[in-house]
Amino acid sequence: MPMTVKALRKTGPDAPFEVAEIERRDPRPTDVVIDIKAAGICHSDIHTIRNEWGEAHFPLTVGHEIAGVVEAVGDEVTHYAVGDRVGVGCLVNSCGHCEECEAGFENNCLNGAVGTYDAEDVDGTITQGGYSQKIVVDERFVCRIPDALDFDVAAPLLCAGITTYSPLATWGVGEGSKVAVLGLGGLGHLGVQIAAAKGAEVTVLSRSRKKEQLAMDLGATEMLSTEEDGFFADNRGRFDLILNTISADIPVDKYLGLLKPRGVMAVVGLPPDAQSLRFGSIIGGRKVLTGSNIGGLPETQEMLDFCAEHGIGAQIEKISVDEVDDAYERVVAGEVYFRAVIDTSTFEDAAMA
Amino acid sequence: MPMTVKALRKTGPDAPFEVAEIERRDPRPTDVVIDIKAAGICHSDIHTIRNEWGEAHFPLTVGHEIAGVVEAVGDEVTHYAVGDRVGVGCLVNSCGHCEECEAGFENNCLNGAVGTYDAEDVDGTITQGGYSQKIVVDERFVCRIPDALDFDVAAPLLCAGITTYSPLATWGVGEGSKVAVLGLGGLGHLGVQIAAAKGAEVTVLSRSRKKEQLAMDLGATEMLSTEEDGFFADNRGRFDLILNTISADIPVDKYLGLLKPRGVMAVVGLPPDAQSLRFGSIIGGRKVLTGSNIGGLPETQEMLDFCAEHGIGAQIEKISVDEVDDAYERVVAGEVYFRAVIDTSTFEDAAMA
Repeated sequence: MPMTVKALRKTGPDAPFEVAEIERRDPRPTDVVIDIKAAGICHSDIHTIRNEWGEAHFPLTVGHEIAGVVEAVGDEVTHYAVGDRVGVGCLVNSCGHCEECEAGFENNCLNGAVGTYDAEDVDGTITQGGYSQKIVVDERFVCRIPDALDFDVAAPLLCAGITTYSPLATWGVGEGSKVAVLGLGGLGHLGVQIAAAKGAEVTVLSRSRKKEQLAMDLGATEMLSTEEDGFFADNRGRFDLILNTISADIPVDKYLGLLKPRGVMAVVGLPPDAQSLRFGSIIGGRKVLTGSNIGGLPETQEMLDFCAEHGIGAQIEKISVDEVDDAYERVVAGEVYFRAVIDTSTFEDAAMA
Repeated sequence: MPMTVKALRKTGPDAPFEVAEIERRDPRPTDVVIDIKAAGICHSDIHTIRNEWGEAHFPLTVGHEIAGVVEAVGDEVTHYAVGDRVGVGCLVNSCGHCEECEAGFENNCLNGAVGTYDAEDVDGTITQGGYSQKIVVDERFVCRIPDALDFDVAAPLLCAGITTYSPLATWGVGEGSKVAVLGLGGLGHLGVQIAAAKGAEVTVLSRSRKKEQLAMDLGATEMLSTEEDGFFADNRGRFDLILNTISADIPVDKYLGLLKPRGVMAVVGLPPDAQSLRFGSIIGGRKVLTGSNIGGLPETQEMLDFCAEHGIGAQIEKISVDEVDDAYERVVAGEVYFRAVIDTSTFEDAAMA
């Protein structure tokens, strides 16, 4: 019998969040029921529920940075048991048999992966995300959260962590790599920590240097302002990899000029408009311009294990369920250093709409 | 004592070619003197000597697809002996000690590689290319041409061959790869042969299908017109790698849509203007947009050996020294299938200007 749980939802893009009861499906044989302990607030949540990425399915509960404890398991679940510490990220289903799924890139599923919220699930329902007390997810889309990671600092790893880990791992960042992280927000602050833990020398690039001390505390060796005179000339040919976490237009050719030959610029931020690129900027020095979009489940688990081993978590502000509207404003204004995470224990006493 | 040899040169961008005597330096201890047997005509020669890439140094002899026989060697030459069959491509010097040179990517030399023509050499002279009877080159920039390759079909491999081989090898094209080659000219016709020899299923893309039979003869399994209705929709997500050999503007996002997840678009043609790119086209499916510019010496040798092993050479029109002006017109008009190569034995009877 489906269960009802408290969740934060919106009934429309302009409505405030309200606490309501939503239904979670009766677990299927391969499902895990998760008692959610922490849910991170990702920019994607905001874009989605404000209809900035198209019409969302209201009423809607968002959230795809989920950490909690297994509360029940279906009969055929083999990897998880009641009491396990687990997480769920941006995906809750995929076909499982296409060449991308078989290669562990469920995020690229050729038959369409199912997003954790606002997506049509295999049963035709619309998925509801993690701003909630519980979630029911197929065990294939569940990761183990090592004991070394608290739930609240782990939750954002399930999206922001894998988003930045994947390109750094894919492109072989390691001991001695010179990495630039462009933008120091929810994504960037994890990128800096991960790259530094991999042994890279990390430079943070931003318009201003106001977060310089924060950057250094995260493991960067330097912070540079991209708006200072001579920035592009002075740093020409310097980096092996640039991780671009910002969603604004950038002078792509100039950034490619900051790379060494055979260097890589990996973009994980999505500016609304097309960018301008001269092919000469990638032909000379055989440079790579690539993107990255979260990661597959095996790599997500690898990332969690890596973060636990290296003591990496998100730097967070813990908020209660009644502070989410305000947190959205502050996230958009760039005032959250660096991730707001909902303490889902505050659902208990929250008044329903 | 420097030697004089006959060469084709131009005294200005609009002057016709003339046969003249030019000086070749007295071989240094590490130099090889090459008796040139064949010299390919590359589009770059035309761009350079017509001042389309800036002001060239006139009088100038171009040509960087050079095949011939070692005629003499300096005292310290260790890899080549008189009588060896050898080739020279786009480079005749580099610093030899930067991290790119040490990694075998002399083409990316951080201190500036020296081009085979129209470049300032280490002694301050301007390099003169292969439309000539002889050339003197440091042995580091000489490759061995296997016996299985005739000089005339081998010469274009030194530029067009390595230009297409390098991205196909770098990105792991092999058995079962689905490769699209965009453009079937001097570059594309080698790309098709190399990709097919590596075991790929090769599709040639071009505006029209007029070269369809040629494409199939080169080893393609299919030729598609990019201008047919539904081309981009019908071929969505189909290729592991697209090798773009054309120098015209292209709808980059649409081409990236032809790639499978984790696919690669490698561009070797340089359109004059900036292209438009939506980052979403590389973020979704973690796609790679990269360029490639010839290759280093180790890879150039590997390419020659590969071509010899697989019976790959350029398809050529052999021309005499008095036919080069005309050949330039026909190359630009796309009428040469697929490479014009100068038979340098025709210098002997050619009248001097």
